[in-house]
Amino acid sequence: MKIAVLGTGGGARAHAARLVELGHEVFASTRDPEATLARTEPDIMGNVPYSQWLADHPGITLKSFGDAAGAADLVINGIDGHNAVAALTAIADRLAGKTLIDYAVPYVYQHDSEHPWPTPWGVMPKLEPCDTDSLAEQIQRALPATKVVKSFVTQEQSTVVDPASVGEGDHTMFVAGDHTDAKQQATDLLTSYGWSDILDLGPLVCARGMEMYAHMHSAIGFSLGQQFGGHFGIKVVR
Amino acid sequence: MKIAVLGTGGGARAHAARLVELGHEVFASTRDPEATLARTEPDIMGNVPYSQWLADHPGITLKSFGDAAGAADLVINGIDGHNAVAALTAIADRLAGKTLIDYAVPYVYQHDSEHPWPTPWGVMPKLEPCDTDSLAEQIQRALPATKVVKSFVTQEQSTVVDPASVGEGDHTMFVAGDHTDAKQQATDLLTSYGWSDILDLGPLVCARGMEMYAHMHSAIGFSLGQQFGGHFGIKVVR
Repeated sequence: MKIAVLGTGGGARAHAARLVELGHEVFASTRDPEATLARTEPDIMGNVPYSQWLADHPGITLKSFGDAAGAADLVINGIDGHNAVAALTAIADRLAGKTLIDYAVPYVYQHDSEHPWPTPWGVMPKLEPCDTDSLAEQIQRALPATKVVKSFVTQEQSTVVDPASVGEGDHTMFVAGDHTDAKQQATDLLTSYGWSDILDLGPLVCARGMEMYAHMHSAIGFSLGQQFGGHFGIKVVR
Repeated sequence: MKIAVLGTGGGARAHAARLVELGHEVFASTRDPEATLARTEPDIMGNVPYSQWLADHPGITLKSFGDAAGAADLVINGIDGHNAVAALTAIADRLAGKTLIDYAVPYVYQHDSEHPWPTPWGVMPKLEPCDTDSLAEQIQRALPATKVVKSFVTQEQSTVVDPASVGEGDHTMFVAGDHTDAKQQATDLLTSYGWSDILDLGPLVCARGMEMYAHMHSAIGFSLGQQFGGHFGIKVVR
């Protein structure tokens, strides 16, 4: 399948690398490919410069967001939550009729002395929207011709693409969305990643709980002594 | 031990009944014991009238919130989140120096045609506070002489008091708080309930994530076809 992965962060890299392994045609993407390739410093999370990563991962093509989305059958949104609605709205016509799987957390980034981020004791950036709306619902309202699925967001993306790396894969992944066929596409992709326990939470409004779980996820990771999210899973025991 | 359980809802009843089974001296409590005992109708959640429940559970004494807290060594807060800070502040002197385990969710109740509650598709009442503060932190600020621990809140209370009823007890309970000795009391109580996997998330600020997990908990319960929360557990797989 032709799959676009929007974004160049650690999560987007994990998906792109895994999708190539699985035999898909993968279009990585960024706002300005030339600028991204020109950078020679690690990104804010310590990931190696993108050009170096791309050289280490043959078979992945870097395009602009719009060109990647336009060329793909399925799109994964790895653009950070703070910028996602604007960036996706700008390429709405390239996303029309397609399934968009969104895993962004709508953190409001506050890089100042009063709001060091992230702290080692569980206080993460504020979420916006939160509680009475979600980023996924905002994206769906902004792109009514696109089928938005919220998924992946309850895990580090390195675990999403390789569930067996934690507890022999015996943990739970969630999907939510208003389009049954799109949720099936997300579920099929997750199954190909190795997930066996995929719980359909229902309509896209359930993305609120999935996004708001971010603080609990961070707290659990920190309590396990794992900075920046951690390497663990959540199993719904029933 | 002498333990006060504040509140007369289903969760408070579950704790009181279990604590008596475990040999504790239990003080159930309500704002106005006479009024509570005079009611002959089931409560809003369909629980039998309290007087009938009390008759079926010998060994439990019903007192006012203040008298129960004053007589106890350990206090469990089952007052609903909307009313908890005011009700606890009113008896602050009876709670001074004691450990208070809080499991309330700060739902803003909206019983009108625009906000039916709860709906079967995962939209629960708004949380207030949310994200940048928590009910547990509000209670701790209002009662600086009390040691507040947030726990129990990520489960139905019927499961909290009987973890083995789900997945042979192989799931995870969380505690958070700023007082190590108080968290140990909560952990000891949970161990006596049957919990073996109890994760200390850290300081009380981690109550934010625990309270915000409420929407995810509801969505999971609904997706499993279990109304009003459901009978399942969450296991941190690592």
